[in-house]
Amino acid sequence: MAIDIKNYLSDNAKGMKKSAIRELLKIANKPEIISFGGGFPNTATFPVEELKEVTAELLDEKPEKILQYGATDGVPALKTQIIKRYQAKGMKCTEDNLIITTASQQAIDLVTKIFINPGDTILCGLPSYLGALQSFNAYRAQPIGIKKDEEADVVISSLIAVGKKPKFIYAIPDFQNPTGVTMDMEERKEIIEVARKYDLYIIEDSPYKDIRFEGEEFPTLYSMDPERVILLGTFSKTFCPGFRIGWALGPVEVIDHINTAKQASDLCTATFNQEIAARYMEKGYFEKNLKKTIVLYRHKRDLMHECLSKYMPKGVTWTRPSGGLFLFVTLPEGMDATKLFDYAIKENVAFVIGEVFFCDGTGQNTLRLNFSYVSDEQMDEGIKRLAKAIKKMI
Amino acid sequence: MAIDIKNYLSDNAKGMKKSAIRELLKIANKPEIISFGGGFPNTATFPVEELKEVTAELLDEKPEKILQYGATDGVPALKTQIIKRYQAKGMKCTEDNLIITTASQQAIDLVTKIFINPGDTILCGLPSYLGALQSFNAYRAQPIGIKKDEEADVVISSLIAVGKKPKFIYAIPDFQNPTGVTMDMEERKEIIEVARKYDLYIIEDSPYKDIRFEGEEFPTLYSMDPERVILLGTFSKTFCPGFRIGWALGPVEVIDHINTAKQASDLCTATFNQEIAARYMEKGYFEKNLKKTIVLYRHKRDLMHECLSKYMPKGVTWTRPSGGLFLFVTLPEGMDATKLFDYAIKENVAFVIGEVFFCDGTGQNTLRLNFSYVSDEQMDEGIKRLAKAIKKMI
Repeated sequence: MAIDIKNYLSDNAKGMKKSAIRELLKIANKPEIISFGGGFPNTATFPVEELKEVTAELLDEKPEKILQYGATDGVPALKTQIIKRYQAKGMKCTEDNLIITTASQQAIDLVTKIFINPGDTILCGLPSYLGALQSFNAYRAQPIGIKKDEEADVVISSLIAVGKKPKFIYAIPDFQNPTGVTMDMEERKEIIEVARKYDLYIIEDSPYKDIRFEGEEFPTLYSMDPERVILLGTFSKTFCPGFRIGWALGPVEVIDHINTAKQASDLCTATFNQEIAARYMEKGYFEKNLKKTIVLYRHKRDLMHECLSKYMPKGVTWTRPSGGLFLFVTLPEGMDATKLFDYAIKENVAFVIGEVFFCDGTGQNTLRLNFSYVSDEQMDEGIKRLAKAIKKMI
Repeated sequence: MAIDIKNYLSDNAKGMKKSAIRELLKIANKPEIISFGGGFPNTATFPVEELKEVTAELLDEKPEKILQYGATDGVPALKTQIIKRYQAKGMKCTEDNLIITTASQQAIDLVTKIFINPGDTILCGLPSYLGALQSFNAYRAQPIGIKKDEEADVVISSLIAVGKKPKFIYAIPDFQNPTGVTMDMEERKEIIEVARKYDLYIIEDSPYKDIRFEGEEFPTLYSMDPERVILLGTFSKTFCPGFRIGWALGPVEVIDHINTAKQASDLCTATFNQEIAARYMEKGYFEKNLKKTIVLYRHKRDLMHECLSKYMPKGVTWTRPSGGLFLFVTLPEGMDATKLFDYAIKENVAFVIGEVFFCDGTGQNTLRLNFSYVSDEQMDEGIKRLAKAIKKMI
């Protein structure tokens, strides 16, 4: 007779939820559906020839190293490259305060693991990255969402008043997921000030910062207070997600605890992939390819804007991100994006309902569109279909 | 001013310990030291030419797939290969009850995550795999070690009597780490019977089963009760550890919970690596290379035995494993392997002190030797040095 799993699950597991995005991607996996759903890079940005060259080279040169176990904190050659890049920007980055992770999702998971007891609060955006909310949920943290950064001070002080001081602030300052919005300098100063006032860590999730289309580059929160901020980076949007390489940069004692937690989680990130990424950077391919990626995604953003202006009915609004992969659409008040999703699927177009990014259950009339993945033809046709679905629903 | 991390750490993080093996490997990382420490495959077993061929082929053929995000449960082509292999042995293995993980360490971590509340007990071997003990510790489980499988029944019933029924049994039936010992058919039947009697899951950790030198192949515990056993496999010992590919095979509802937990942990395992592994298996390279690996490791085991017989002083004993990568040495009663370690390092030889594998803190007079990694010359010289260190200490 089969065991009844319910009698054996941990309290954490009982509360875990499947990612709405991953479930959606299964529905949207039919060839006839144009999907603005996932945060997928455009496959045209994948550096195939460079990878062929680098992989063959390394397999010739040092197979005994690249196929073997590696140190938990990462392959030295890759750390060196990442350190160089940050140091070139005047940031504090050394071997000791940097750890390579199995993409930044693992970094989020491990940061949550080392800081969160069940019931602990985390201050985050409203909306915020679903994958982070999932990690928080997996440890039964209580995310408290704020709509504007100015609210941080009063929200934290009221949380402290009820004995619920947040363990950390989770922020995506550049081209935020899902909104595409960027914190300006004033907001950055404010959030650092608040963190200092209440003596809080900040988790600065930064997957999109390098994909800037225009405008000023703001400093990372990490560079503004390296003893308080843990910066999470990734190659998933600027190189290739199939490699699963990310990193965390922060105070030495935090990185050290992440290291200990990582040992028990997966021992080390794939040596093979790290060595390839290191050589790829050494050869200057990374910066070269990044430039091309920015040009392509800027075009895609512009095109999506054009199509939205062309097709969307009155009352529908959207953000204009200066970088990243996403923009955020607001439907007329009272309209439900979850219902729209069914209409959209009938029109063979998919998106992510905005609600899943709101930890307080609001955001029903919002949705996230990814502009990096689809072809130009699909962009036009897909937005047309989406507009049609919206009009049908109205 | 820097934050005091102690005020922010989770209770789980406070109890986490660094792996004694990983710390030791740092010490043993000097070129003059011959290390029997890590569980490293021999680099001669790395299929370099095959990897060159397969990687180039796939980068030509479908870069848009192998470099992109993949499904959380794994790349279909790889799952198909693993399913075929198990089905060929008459085992129940389908798409739904198999999930690819970031090596089997992640599978151990996720299984622990979905089952364990702080204070829950787990029945395991005494000694047992350190990486598993670390995962258990990271969730504040209480591992209860048993020396012989016959003890399982009375130990479980006494745990139940004090309200501490184990959440699962953790076992490594084939060529156990660290002892190298294999459960015979009688023992397998017994452990299944006990699990049925008390309605328990069994985690069958099986990294070495394919590396069998001689003797009968016993059935997996999983094949004996697929509704109760979760089998963990890995390519780290039979292909290459730098790829970080493992899997879990078990009841659908367990695999489904592992899937949900994995989404929040690292989204998916490297697509690139999975696609390469799949093609490598499709081409028959896996089985071919495994055969060579077995021949090599059998020779290494024999050689280590020879050297031990030749050099070790009286009173030192060791196991004779019929497969795997390790053998276990027992020093004369009262001798402390931790002290021996200092002597050994002075003689430029390293091993893992056995104590770290004992969840009850015993095992002071034991040590683990890895025979897969070193060259034949190093084997002789290394065992000679170790014997010298032992004699010095006596």
